[in-house]
Amino acid sequence: MGKIRCIGILTSGGDAPGMNAAIRAVTRSGISNGYKIKGIYRGYDGLINDDIQIFTTENVSSIIQRGGTILRTARSKEFTTPAGRKKAYDTLVKEGIDALVVIGGNGSLTGAMLLADEYDFPCIGLPGTIDNDLWGTDSTIGYDTTLNTIKECVDKIRDTATSHERIFFVEVMGRDAGFLAQYSAIAAGAEAAIIPEDSTDSDQLIEFMKRGIRKSKKSCIVIVSESPKCGAMYYAERVNKEYPEFDVRVSILGHLQRGGSPSAHDRILASLTGVGAIQAVKQGQRNVMVGVRNNELVYVPFVDAVRKKKPIDRNLIKVLDDLSI
Amino acid sequence: MGKIRCIGILTSGGDAPGMNAAIRAVTRSGISNGYKIKGIYRGYDGLINDDIQIFTTENVSSIIQRGGTILRTARSKEFTTPAGRKKAYDTLVKEGIDALVVIGGNGSLTGAMLLADEYDFPCIGLPGTIDNDLWGTDSTIGYDTTLNTIKECVDKIRDTATSHERIFFVEVMGRDAGFLAQYSAIAAGAEAAIIPEDSTDSDQLIEFMKRGIRKSKKSCIVIVSESPKCGAMYYAERVNKEYPEFDVRVSILGHLQRGGSPSAHDRILASLTGVGAIQAVKQGQRNVMVGVRNNELVYVPFVDAVRKKKPIDRNLIKVLDDLSI
Amino acid sequence: MGKIRCIGILTSGGDAPGMNAAIRAVTRSGISNGYKIKGIYRGYDGLINDDIQIFTTENVSSIIQRGGTILRTARSKEFTTPAGRKKAYDTLVKEGIDALVVIGGNGSLTGAMLLADEYDFPCIGLPGTIDNDLWGTDSTIGYDTTLNTIKECVDKIRDTATSHERIFFVEVMGRDAGFLAQYSAIAAGAEAAIIPEDSTDSDQLIEFMKRGIRKSKKSCIVIVSESPKCGAMYYAERVNKEYPEFDVRVSILGHLQRGGSPSAHDRILASLTGVGAIQAVKQGQRNVMVGVRNNELVYVPFVDAVRKKKPIDRNLIKVLDDLSI
Amino acid sequence: MGKIRCIGILTSGGDAPGMNAAIRAVTRSGISNGYKIKGIYRGYDGLINDDIQIFTTENVSSIIQRGGTILRTARSKEFTTPAGRKKAYDTLVKEGIDALVVIGGNGSLTGAMLLADEYDFPCIGLPGTIDNDLWGTDSTIGYDTTLNTIKECVDKIRDTATSHERIFFVEVMGRDAGFLAQYSAIAAGAEAAIIPEDSTDSDQLIEFMKRGIRKSKKSCIVIVSESPKCGAMYYAERVNKEYPEFDVRVSILGHLQRGGSPSAHDRILASLTGVGAIQAVKQGQRNVMVGVRNNELVYVPFVDAVRKKKPIDRNLIKVLDDLSI
Repeated sequence: MGKIRCIGILTSGGDAPGMNAAIRAVTRSGISNGYKIKGIYRGYDGLINDDIQIFTTENVSSIIQRGGTILRTARSKEFTTPAGRKKAYDTLVKEGIDALVVIGGNGSLTGAMLLADEYDFPCIGLPGTIDNDLWGTDSTIGYDTTLNTIKECVDKIRDTATSHERIFFVEVMGRDAGFLAQYSAIAAGAEAAIIPEDSTDSDQLIEFMKRGIRKSKKSCIVIVSESPKCGAMYYAERVNKEYPEFDVRVSILGHLQRGGSPSAHDRILASLTGVGAIQAVKQGQRNVMVGVRNNELVYVPFVDAVRKKKPIDRNLIKVLDDLSI
Repeated sequence: MGKIRCIGILTSGGDAPGMNAAIRAVTRSGISNGYKIKGIYRGYDGLINDDIQIFTTENVSSIIQRGGTILRTARSKEFTTPAGRKKAYDTLVKEGIDALVVIGGNGSLTGAMLLADEYDFPCIGLPGTIDNDLWGTDSTIGYDTTLNTIKECVDKIRDTATSHERIFFVEVMGRDAGFLAQYSAIAAGAEAAIIPEDSTDSDQLIEFMKRGIRKSKKSCIVIVSESPKCGAMYYAERVNKEYPEFDVRVSILGHLQRGGSPSAHDRILASLTGVGAIQAVKQGQRNVMVGVRNNELVYVPFVDAVRKKKPIDRNLIKVLDDLSI
Repeated sequence: MGKIRCIGILTSGGDAPGMNAAIRAVTRSGISNGYKIKGIYRGYDGLINDDIQIFTTENVSSIIQRGGTILRTARSKEFTTPAGRKKAYDTLVKEGIDALVVIGGNGSLTGAMLLADEYDFPCIGLPGTIDNDLWGTDSTIGYDTTLNTIKECVDKIRDTATSHERIFFVEVMGRDAGFLAQYSAIAAGAEAAIIPEDSTDSDQLIEFMKRGIRKSKKSCIVIVSESPKCGAMYYAERVNKEYPEFDVRVSILGHLQRGGSPSAHDRILASLTGVGAIQAVKQGQRNVMVGVRNNELVYVPFVDAVRKKKPIDRNLIKVLDDLSI
Repeated sequence: MGKIRCIGILTSGGDAPGMNAAIRAVTRSGISNGYKIKGIYRGYDGLINDDIQIFTTENVSSIIQRGGTILRTARSKEFTTPAGRKKAYDTLVKEGIDALVVIGGNGSLTGAMLLADEYDFPCIGLPGTIDNDLWGTDSTIGYDTTLNTIKECVDKIRDTATSHERIFFVEVMGRDAGFLAQYSAIAAGAEAAIIPEDSTDSDQLIEFMKRGIRKSKKSCIVIVSESPKCGAMYYAERVNKEYPEFDVRVSILGHLQRGGSPSAHDRILASLTGVGAIQAVKQGQRNVMVGVRNNELVYVPFVDAVRKKKPIDRNLIKVLDDLSI
């Protein structure tokens, strides 16, 4: 296969703070290294529909500090089908794009892996998801910012929880991965965290109550990962039923967790992995996700990044217990 | 009646950022002016139950920057009864408290007015509510901080709304007063605001859609005052039904709107009115709320502050329309 | 003179947070009301050099939350001369601009007044300065954001001042007006403020020390308005000399005071006065500054806005004294 | 030696955000594990002068979110002498303290190492410094918060730099270690960083200018590590001399870099290492610093932590170059 001259870039799936910093890094580092850069709008849908524009350093000026993604994003149904990926590949050929950089989470990198496999097309992934659930990288772009956003929200909720002596169940994102709930609970000084990796049933709930709420403390905050069935509302109702003397409230943080100016950590991670993506292309690497482990750049094969399960640290439950006395 | 030697202070009703700054100002200015200060915990309930402590300058050290209220707060049912107020008055006598400063909203100041009337007891009110619905003062302690909190949340939501090209209905506090919704919509650059002062019915909703959403813009944010029946969820469902092609989401900001370190404006307002409360006591004023109008301290009779309706500015609807094209 | 069809807009002098919100409001409200809008870059220099571009709603999209000014700004020396203003007027004629909106502080509005007088040209001013030193408006665009920025910085400095038990002299902007120093001192809970309106001499300095520093408190913060001769460094050195036992430090906040996402208050003020500027043009008003007094729009003749002296409230010195015990 | 029953804790040297979170974690986890905890005020001076108090969970309530250190801190000259350490040891014996946890930077942990060596006394260190210059841990408590503080300040400075088209030299902390300057430059999107590890001489300065400033860009930001001789002021004057056509400004961020509510990362790091310190005591470990490497707790011998040089990543210079085109 021929020399790579033109690199396409897209963001896909749920947006994450730092995606713009990554777009900037890929674009600038790409141009610095002699590549032409093309920005693909609206994720894989934009690739299918040829929603593409040449990017210069101007396009990415003053975006490092902005949340969201200037390339827009979407969850493409069509791209999950072979027919959709065929169309996407045709666009790549038509546009003269020789390599593709995809910024996104598990689903988006799985898509890149399939495209790479089916068309022998060089794809590089950047870990862009607030959930931190990609294997092989210490953290993902957006995760640190979201942790800080949750921390700030819970700091505010604690002001009112303490003033009114209330129990709060605060629901955070992370349907399939408890990183946000577990670590934000530690950061916010919450009394407990309920995460999808644990099947917290009613008995455990009672345990929570005994352990976390029935202390001398008169207010208490429990962080709960969002869940179709057992979210914050579910636990609040259970507690309310069993301990009607408590003044129980629910706060669902929702979409504001996705936005905001990225933290220093996420801007640095996005910048380093963005530059790393261009280095990977230059070195002839392909079909890898660029991550950072132990302060060093690493290249993780797609199959490992998306299929291996990043484990939650069980010791953290003990840590929370020790700290919430 | 005798000379005033000891002043009691309490916070009551929903907590508001800046209440601590007000407690600090009353305490320090009181001590500076030769008064003894007693802090009453948990609002009127603490007065009824004699949950009271002498306050020195130490008690209010390093609290100006903290949200919530170190005196705790509550909505007291007992105090709304004559029997409850009798108990409260007995505590005042027993504790040797000669005047009372109450920091709170409409309900709390109404309580102070009743106590003052029934027992000829000098009460001074400070406008402590995020809702800004007290007549006679340009703004209330907590309102500016909450406006800023909403603004920051909506800035974050806009990042993701724009990235995904979605319509968001964002619900904010202010069940009975649209100040927060109306002004935060302007501050956040939202496309529209739905407030309790307007009976926005289905037809108006359709108007909203035509006006605010069906523009060339692909994302849109509508701020909705919380409401038992017609909150953000209600409007989202209506729009979803009529315009299924839109990707509609709801965000309910909830209790985080009450917390956080107070803004400069709220700290200044709390400090000036807190000092003003002590001046009022010194001058022999009683049964007034201390406010700020046109950058000057004013003393507003309780009956005006709580019974007169602070009007919403109808021109603002036109302003939003002009700005959201 | 003829009907106004095209309105030019520029920002001038020191930049202030909220200028972008004002540009957005003028542009959108102008277009809503049927005017053509032209953006003039780099202040009066851009007017002299014809650095001008047609503005659509797109140009001002997503700028309400951004600090600085997308129109750039400058202090034009040439415009202070009659020859410079002649060139500026010629550009206005050449570009078909029928009215001019100027966002800036005292110097910039004085320039607008001269242009208006000399060429009978309709000019509308918006109060855009962090210093709050324009007569006739309760506050100026940028002032509230800067107050909050200073407050946040001093909150941080207090953390380290308390931890190390140090005296800090913090220098803030406001060379000719003490509003920022005086009010930020109250907001930040500082012990004293030194402002240009007071000729704080050595004797007063000793007073400060006795009053503010030699208390039981082991740390202390004094806010000082910047000054060519008597800034924070000057006072720190004096104190250090007289009280060598204190651990004295200086912090000069500098240019970061000009930046940042504007506060809710400044975005609202900028939006209302921006809409008000277009209303003024429509009503045939000219040569006025749009302000807000007592929550209502006001139109202040240029000559009053720039020549009358907005007084500092002397009572605030007493307030600070009461609160810093 | 006997069983450990009572653990002393102190903070020493420059304060860092997250020290309070560490004090909370050590105290709560210590009490959870059956130890008595004693808080030592004002660093080693407090140990020498027996400025000590028993700590309960109450003492550390609501401090996780606060900057500074409730234990106060100081740089003790006396403790650097054998006589001083003798007094400190005598206090430990007198107070019945069996092990000591020290939170601080290089100098403070060196002090702990000497005490441990000379008196065979079990000491555990926590890496508390904004400079990130301790070997063996991926980051230090306070570093991430300070990075974020610098990032926010530079974001603000960029608003005004862009509006006025100016060159800014921004001075940050880190006299002996360039981590803060290097990484904040990447996070803030600065054009260059000047760090103590590089002997940037005049020729290099000219290089900077050619590389970073003389581009099409009209504004530019250079981050400079503080330095007795070659700080931001030095470089600004040099540039001003050689390129008088540029509008060059200096901003010295100063002590505000030490304060502020700690970031999520620093609160988590402080909590995990604080719990880890108690585990270390329990396991009989001594004279180690608790760090986190690769998301796992590590125990680093004092001699390695303080004597080995944590290297700066030279690749980052290339990264900055690529990104600032």
